[in-house]
Amino acid sequence: MHPLMMGSLSWVTYQQRLQEGNAIVLIPCGALEQHGPHLPLGTDALLSTSVAQAVAEQINGLVAPTFSYGYKSQPKSGGGQSFPGTTSLDGSSLIHLMRDVVRELARQGVTQIGVVNGHYENQWFLTEGIELAIREMGNDSGLRVMRLEYWDFLTQDILDKVFPDGFPGFALEHAAVIETSLMIHYHPNLVHLNLIPDIPPTDFPPYDLFPQCPEWVHPSGVLSSAKSASAEKGKLMAEHITTGIAAAIQQAFPPISPSDRSFSIFSHPSQRSSQSTC
Amino acid sequence: MHPLMMGSLSWVTYQQRLQEGNAIVLIPCGALEQHGPHLPLGTDALLSTSVAQAVAEQINGLVAPTFSYGYKSQPKSGGGQSFPGTTSLDGSSLIHLMRDVVRELARQGVTQIGVVNGHYENQWFLTEGIELAIREMGNDSGLRVMRLEYWDFLTQDILDKVFPDGFPGFALEHAAVIETSLMIHYHPNLVHLNLIPDIPPTDFPPYDLFPQCPEWVHPSGVLSSAKSASAEKGKLMAEHITTGIAAAIQQAFPPISPSDRSFSIFSHPSQRSSQSTC
Amino acid sequence: MHPLMMGSLSWVTYQQRLQEGNAIVLIPCGALEQHGPHLPLGTDALLSTSVAQAVAEQINGLVAPTFSYGYKSQPKSGGGQSFPGTTSLDGSSLIHLMRDVVRELARQGVTQIGVVNGHYENQWFLTEGIELAIREMGNDSGLRVMRLEYWDFLTQDILDKVFPDGFPGFALEHAAVIETSLMIHYHPNLVHLNLIPDIPPTDFPPYDLFPQCPEWVHPSGVLSSAKSASAEKGKLMAEHITTGIAAAIQQAFPPISPSDRSFSIFSHPSQRSSQSTC
Amino acid sequence: MHPLMMGSLSWVTYQQRLQEGNAIVLIPCGALEQHGPHLPLGTDALLSTSVAQAVAEQINGLVAPTFSYGYKSQPKSGGGQSFPGTTSLDGSSLIHLMRDVVRELARQGVTQIGVVNGHYENQWFLTEGIELAIREMGNDSGLRVMRLEYWDFLTQDILDKVFPDGFPGFALEHAAVIETSLMIHYHPNLVHLNLIPDIPPTDFPPYDLFPQCPEWVHPSGVLSSAKSASAEKGKLMAEHITTGIAAAIQQAFPPISPSDRSFSIFSHPSQRSSQSTC
Amino acid sequence: MHPLMMGSLSWVTYQQRLQEGNAIVLIPCGALEQHGPHLPLGTDALLSTSVAQAVAEQINGLVAPTFSYGYKSQPKSGGGQSFPGTTSLDGSSLIHLMRDVVRELARQGVTQIGVVNGHYENQWFLTEGIELAIREMGNDSGLRVMRLEYWDFLTQDILDKVFPDGFPGFALEHAAVIETSLMIHYHPNLVHLNLIPDIPPTDFPPYDLFPQCPEWVHPSGVLSSAKSASAEKGKLMAEHITTGIAAAIQQAFPPISPSDRSFSIFSHPSQRSSQSTC
Amino acid sequence: MHPLMMGSLSWVTYQQRLQEGNAIVLIPCGALEQHGPHLPLGTDALLSTSVAQAVAEQINGLVAPTFSYGYKSQPKSGGGQSFPGTTSLDGSSLIHLMRDVVRELARQGVTQIGVVNGHYENQWFLTEGIELAIREMGNDSGLRVMRLEYWDFLTQDILDKVFPDGFPGFALEHAAVIETSLMIHYHPNLVHLNLIPDIPPTDFPPYDLFPQCPEWVHPSGVLSSAKSASAEKGKLMAEHITTGIAAAIQQAFPPISPSDRSFSIFSHPSQRSSQSTC
Repeated sequence: MHPLMMGSLSWVTYQQRLQEGNAIVLIPCGALEQHGPHLPLGTDALLSTSVAQAVAEQINGLVAPTFSYGYKSQPKSGGGQSFPGTTSLDGSSLIHLMRDVVRELARQGVTQIGVVNGHYENQWFLTEGIELAIREMGNDSGLRVMRLEYWDFLTQDILDKVFPDGFPGFALEHAAVIETSLMIHYHPNLVHLNLIPDIPPTDFPPYDLFPQCPEWVHPSGVLSSAKSASAEKGKLMAEHITTGIAAAIQQAFPPISPSDRSFSIFSHPSQRSSQSTC
Repeated sequence: MHPLMMGSLSWVTYQQRLQEGNAIVLIPCGALEQHGPHLPLGTDALLSTSVAQAVAEQINGLVAPTFSYGYKSQPKSGGGQSFPGTTSLDGSSLIHLMRDVVRELARQGVTQIGVVNGHYENQWFLTEGIELAIREMGNDSGLRVMRLEYWDFLTQDILDKVFPDGFPGFALEHAAVIETSLMIHYHPNLVHLNLIPDIPPTDFPPYDLFPQCPEWVHPSGVLSSAKSASAEKGKLMAEHITTGIAAAIQQAFPPISPSDRSFSIFSHPSQRSSQSTC
Repeated sequence: MHPLMMGSLSWVTYQQRLQEGNAIVLIPCGALEQHGPHLPLGTDALLSTSVAQAVAEQINGLVAPTFSYGYKSQPKSGGGQSFPGTTSLDGSSLIHLMRDVVRELARQGVTQIGVVNGHYENQWFLTEGIELAIREMGNDSGLRVMRLEYWDFLTQDILDKVFPDGFPGFALEHAAVIETSLMIHYHPNLVHLNLIPDIPPTDFPPYDLFPQCPEWVHPSGVLSSAKSASAEKGKLMAEHITTGIAAAIQQAFPPISPSDRSFSIFSHPSQRSSQSTC
Repeated sequence: MHPLMMGSLSWVTYQQRLQEGNAIVLIPCGALEQHGPHLPLGTDALLSTSVAQAVAEQINGLVAPTFSYGYKSQPKSGGGQSFPGTTSLDGSSLIHLMRDVVRELARQGVTQIGVVNGHYENQWFLTEGIELAIREMGNDSGLRVMRLEYWDFLTQDILDKVFPDGFPGFALEHAAVIETSLMIHYHPNLVHLNLIPDIPPTDFPPYDLFPQCPEWVHPSGVLSSAKSASAEKGKLMAEHITTGIAAAIQQAFPPISPSDRSFSIFSHPSQRSSQSTC
Repeated sequence: MHPLMMGSLSWVTYQQRLQEGNAIVLIPCGALEQHGPHLPLGTDALLSTSVAQAVAEQINGLVAPTFSYGYKSQPKSGGGQSFPGTTSLDGSSLIHLMRDVVRELARQGVTQIGVVNGHYENQWFLTEGIELAIREMGNDSGLRVMRLEYWDFLTQDILDKVFPDGFPGFALEHAAVIETSLMIHYHPNLVHLNLIPDIPPTDFPPYDLFPQCPEWVHPSGVLSSAKSASAEKGKLMAEHITTGIAAAIQQAFPPISPSDRSFSIFSHPSQRSSQSTC
Repeated sequence: MHPLMMGSLSWVTYQQRLQEGNAIVLIPCGALEQHGPHLPLGTDALLSTSVAQAVAEQINGLVAPTFSYGYKSQPKSGGGQSFPGTTSLDGSSLIHLMRDVVRELARQGVTQIGVVNGHYENQWFLTEGIELAIREMGNDSGLRVMRLEYWDFLTQDILDKVFPDGFPGFALEHAAVIETSLMIHYHPNLVHLNLIPDIPPTDFPPYDLFPQCPEWVHPSGVLSSAKSASAEKGKLMAEHITTGIAAAIQQAFPPISPSDRSFSIFSHPSQRSSQSTC
């Protein structure tokens, strides 16, 4: 287990980290969802965890246990719920999971939390969970939470390199070039390159239908081909994403000075001076 | 009140419409949310309603009462919750509102429902509400629901005409050219052209922060300028969107033949033959 | 759209209204429910909205978007759920809708809210929603909410005029003389006088049965006849109700002096001086 | 403990009762709520229980454990929440309590359930709980539930005897003549006749205010005087109510013939023939 | 009704008790659950109530209305849900019932509450309800709640006397020697000694299966025989349990001095000095 | 990642496993909770996962992603919520998480599920989640779920070897000999033997107090000393537990014959023949 994972630390070590001011905690959020025949069901959880760990190394942060289950897969973004193995949560379950964990970290004195999301469908339920936790703590409690989708840190110049023939947009990137390259980089033994489907990009209508239409999605589960994925692209993107997120966090969450750190653990955040910039 | 609004019909007339096979019901979903100094708080509800009414005219459908309140505004898509007048629902409230209305329409024998969303932040909570209603009714009940964001029916050629200098993307279109033009078209007396802020497009970071950062958003509440909005652009887009949605619905929801219509109202959908194409 | 509807105002105008001390906000609550062959499904929403607008004109108040869906119709008060078009919410959905909207208005600095209910079955779920919002804000926050059913402002002398042969009680007034007369007054084009059923008052047992018994209710959906309804009666009642509610609100919600109004929007209500009388 | 209380029977005896066809189960619903200085906090629970037991004796039914806590007291019907001892449930808690118990009884093979309500504020939350249980079981499951407020079985001739000077209406009957007389009849040792307040009827406005206004209610907690209460009136009303409810139940819930009773306990109700009349 | 039951007191008397400092309120929690052919369905509710009343007599406390329904019976601890008469609540219903009652008592000024549980399956849902109420009130509000299972106060010396051949553990004590002896002591007329099954202790596997396996449990519903139960054992245990609980409460909840009692009822607990020891 | 973890398989491989009849899925459930200065916060999640993986190897099963967060720690079983790092879920969040995952696996055609719990406080919320999922699927759907606490498979002979001076009971085994020995066996690099506190067993009262009393627990967080833990004991217990659970599962979940396996994935379980023994 990665040494910055909260689950690998004793409470004594964790408390020391809090008191020393290294209290930024990252929460990776993934899913258990089909990712084609070449990537594992845990892809979103694995990638969000790997990204969070790499970021934590750069900012001396910590990583809370990964959310391994996510919101229901949709055909146009993840292939949909019809594939065996896609095991999803109801919206309210994910909302409350996020709310509880943020509330608990804040109760322990953590005021700087980063939610690293790797499953597109999670975004709004994570947002609501954070909003509810903030409301409970009070807007002026000093608690600050950043939520991000890691791929949004890919800038145009990187996308140009990864997609020399033009970036078709994030919409079809499920189990495609970006995710496959990152998996080759982080978890090469879990990728089956020989099984990558060679299909044209899927063409979706500008609406969603319920019950979901499995017919909309290629039988393989991928939305566009990952044939051009590579370890090099994975490394390039991983480093870029990691650096970008680390910089964003350090800008949004300035260091907390020792005098501000004099709070006793478990005092209510509002009794401590808050440090936040927008 | 528009004559295709359910609320303007007696139950007897409504029943006749169901029995005649004109049973596609559209549900407009909006919000009460700041839209700059030049547009009213009800913009999203007004536009989704106008679009739904125009579509209903083309497909001989009906329009259920509008959802006038929506999910919490976010700075990067709607300016955020800090503006007076922005009056929002918790995620679970919106989920259950959507679930209840879909369930009730299905109970009455409606099997073809269109959810016309005009507030970006609503999308995933509406989706979950629909998913929950479908699960209750059973996947094989014959109930079919389409959810759409109306702006997704703007094709590239239309966008090229509306944005001759290049379309900057939907991300900053809150209270900007598209919404303002459509409001001039549908509700000219509610638009104050002289109050349109002349500001450059807002530059947002690739993440969200909570508590929300009001400083990210221009004090006017708009994310980019609506100066180039016009009635002509509104008309062009309104007609295009209406035609597009009507065509999509007619393709996804084929006519139900009289023999299929022989069900008695309030029989369970699964006891009737279902008509659906993906 | 009525100029006092929140949805027709920009946030800037709304903010000015708040700062000028005209901050009483009325929330009309209705339903989508059968009202016989002569009245539209939206009757309760239409009437509560019209009453709220008329009151707002007298007290210089504002009107929030109408709750267009209400709690499940019951046979003895609304004919029950068996009529096509009656589209209802679960109790908890309505509770949370009410709670959210009150909480949000209070967050914006509104401390005087009137809930104008036009659907009998809503009453207790609206009450619980208000109670929950008050609990969240704190009993001493200064927030004050009035909930009323508009027909309770009909005094005996008015009822004597409307029912010269004796008032049979509110119990059977669903789609009957009071509602029909008010609809003729406010929305004459939505009333079909020629379709008013001529039936004797329905005789109900002193209990309720579940599943609901459609057999208890006349096939037309009305509980007693509206034959004696008229525009004059509608006008008489509308003016009386409006004046009565306006007076009640002005007594319960005294003007907030400018010095009290010096709060910054979005300060917590408890940080402001409260004005309330019982 | 009364011998018809479910809690006093072994499961074997209870099963025999179900199999013999004496399966009507009554659920008394009360509250823990101030009832003036002369009646105990448990009055609503005590009276609904006593009524249910008396009815059960007449119809050979059974009585489930009483709901001892009810929905929040309101000033105009119960004096409100400000009196020490008034200990109330949130609306959703009461809804789910009712839903669970009805669902459980139905699971055991009970298809005829009577909910005997003695606390006015409970009515709509009990209704919703029953509606939710019915929906879970399916409308065609054969399950039938009657909900009643016991005072609604007082006919005009009885009221004329109890109130020789004219019945002022049920609205102010909290801890007044009806409840006090019934308590003298059923639980004389819990009534303190010498402490009955001698006050005129309370005059309430035609609306509710939140936070509740304790000032609206006489400091004693009663809404009108119980001075004219007596054991004779209690006996008269108790017998009339009991007979009326018993007759109503026997009409609504016809005997289930032995052949219909051949179901095995725990078969789903829909697999058994249902007996119901409206 | 026992004179220390809250339900038998008027609010005036209850208020006096609070002001005099006798404000420890006990909440008995039971179930409606099969207890073999010899004990009634209400056994857990009856015993927890009797114990609470006996304790209240010793500490001059009060007893709130009993929770007569509990969480779902499990085969290994209560025989399971398959026996007619076992009528149970969903987990969240019980959680919210407990939360509401604790919150309400605290709102009235009660800061010392004892939850006397007599149904094993209730334990964790009661715990969560208490945790939620405490969180709402604030950790520093002075509210203190003790939750106990009454049988945990049986010390080894007592068990040695009750089980001269060796105590087999609490696991199989459902409807067995302890409960039967206590019922003979407290409610002899509800016990059918001649119907006590004579069976060996049930042998359960070290896991649970769902759907529950009725085959695991003896058809009588008991898990081990109550043949050796007696009134003497019941008296011995009842007195020991009562004394033990009373002593524990008096140690954990020290007397509140008159000066501390000077709070006005309905002030928030945090505004009063708190008295608590761990 | 262990090759039997669902998250490491592609959906194609997972589907093959389902179709081949190796469809027993184990769900490890842990917590993020202090475990003294010598064990990591993730101990319960790590051990339940290791046990599940070892069992899966023996029965050719699969392991779903671990529940890394659990219910609130209690002083008497886990030291309580006061230790930094203990990050817990509300009861209802855990209930719904369990319900969702069981429902989703069943939807995919899995009918044999094992829940391997490693955090004592989880037990009843997991149980309720399973009960709710079973109720949704229907008792006769063929879905079968086993829930177990792994330590319950330690038989007396093993305990005699691990505790030569007598087994003091599971109550104080938090972060003590059993957990520490198993961690040395499974994750030696995460154990700090030199930091094991040398304290006598904690003496707890026979009740719980809320707010929790941190003073009840030794400042180290352990309830009794792990000094006598060893790799040998860990290996002995791990093998015994694994073998025991594997045998129990194979007895309770008999092989599903090929003909029974002819169901198409995503057919409702009730349409397939069920295999279950009690």
